[in-house]
Amino acid sequence: MTPEQRLADMGITLPGTPEPVANYVPFKIAGDLIFVSGQVPREEGGLTATGLVGGDVSPEDACRAARVCAINILAAVKAAAGDLSRVEAVRLEGFVASAEGFTGQPAVLNGASDFLIEILGEAGRHTRFAVGVAELPRGAAVEIGAVFRLL
Amino acid sequence: MTPEQRLADMGITLPGTPEPVANYVPFKIAGDLIFVSGQVPREEGGLTATGLVGGDVSPEDACRAARVCAINILAAVKAAAGDLSRVEAVRLEGFVASAEGFTGQPAVLNGASDFLIEILGEAGRHTRFAVGVAELPRGAAVEIGAVFRLL
Amino acid sequence: MTPEQRLADMGITLPGTPEPVANYVPFKIAGDLIFVSGQVPREEGGLTATGLVGGDVSPEDACRAARVCAINILAAVKAAAGDLSRVEAVRLEGFVASAEGFTGQPAVLNGASDFLIEILGEAGRHTRFAVGVAELPRGAAVEIGAVFRLL
Repeated sequence: MTPEQRLADMGITLPGTPEPVANYVPFKIAGDLIFVSGQVPREEGGLTATGLVGGDVSPEDACRAARVCAINILAAVKAAAGDLSRVEAVRLEGFVASAEGFTGQPAVLNGASDFLIEILGEAGRHTRFAVGVAELPRGAAVEIGAVFRLL
Repeated sequence: MTPEQRLADMGITLPGTPEPVANYVPFKIAGDLIFVSGQVPREEGGLTATGLVGGDVSPEDACRAARVCAINILAAVKAAAGDLSRVEAVRLEGFVASAEGFTGQPAVLNGASDFLIEILGEAGRHTRFAVGVAELPRGAAVEIGAVFRLL
Repeated sequence: MTPEQRLADMGITLPGTPEPVANYVPFKIAGDLIFVSGQVPREEGGLTATGLVGGDVSPEDACRAARVCAINILAAVKAAAGDLSRVEAVRLEGFVASAEGFTGQPAVLNGASDFLIEILGEAGRHTRFAVGVAELPRGAAVEIGAVFRLL
């Protein structure tokens, strides 16, 4: 089954190439690497989670938001590569807006990591960092950048 | 017009290769990628903006500081590549020291993004992430790392 | 002297490949680049430094913790490359959990930077960014990601 078929089976439609909110591009290919701009949990209706995780936002909601970030990352990767069978994930750069004392960033990021492996299989396995930051654009609870590779 | 001519037209002199404040190098070439160390808004007289954006530092001043970071990035890229016509921007890693509740990091980063496109044209278009952090070295309001590519 | 001999001379045993605390991998090779997941100062007994630097954690202890992060990074690189003579450091992504007003992130990161140069010599020289974040996984005082290159 192709990654595109898996997405369809799960009822997930990749959004149009995410529109940057400023003067930059959603992806850039450099050699065989695809760099993807930081994605927030944006759906049609806006951001799915805003505020500080461990405060206004529960870790579970943040985990679901990280999955939405990963959907937006895949949308950019698909726009870059044409075909999700031709790529592998290399790195996630994970930023979680964190309330004082919240140290569960890895579990939040798992929402993105698990999803990539679910859709891409072994090719979805990646390195990552997960850190807790003070604030994110437009109050997003999570922002995730990525590097993929063209196979 | 070359990027170097555009800089001259704008009255901008690239500073000498930024001197790291610690045991690392301003740039490193790996294959056709140029990695550039995080740059703060350092000018001859010191940092142009220190403190938290949305608090002591206005978003407008922070945007101007991001432009200074980008000038320092170009200085490192020029030292790496010799000729700014031979490079394209791939990624900015944007960190904005942010007061509680400040979520305008993208507009701050635009100070760097717009400048790169102004100088490099299409080759200046890049991916990026922009996040709000608690503190930056020496109290800098903005720090920006970068990846470029040798054409 | 090989990097492995230098480590032995210093009485340092690289730990087993660091076990990610979530669904990701410690390293991934993409072309000639080795991406290494964010490492915390984990030793056998747990994390060597938890809390905010400039608050509960002294800059000196954080610097030592950054060195432990670098040991864990080298362990991942060794697992990826087989032989530390075959690699060079390209980039460190440094995150320091920072108390309000703490701006000494570069000196903290030097614990990692100096160690890499001590072990790898010229090949250990790298670019980096160093930023102060709000919180890190499991309360770690420092987290460092890395990119190396296969020679």
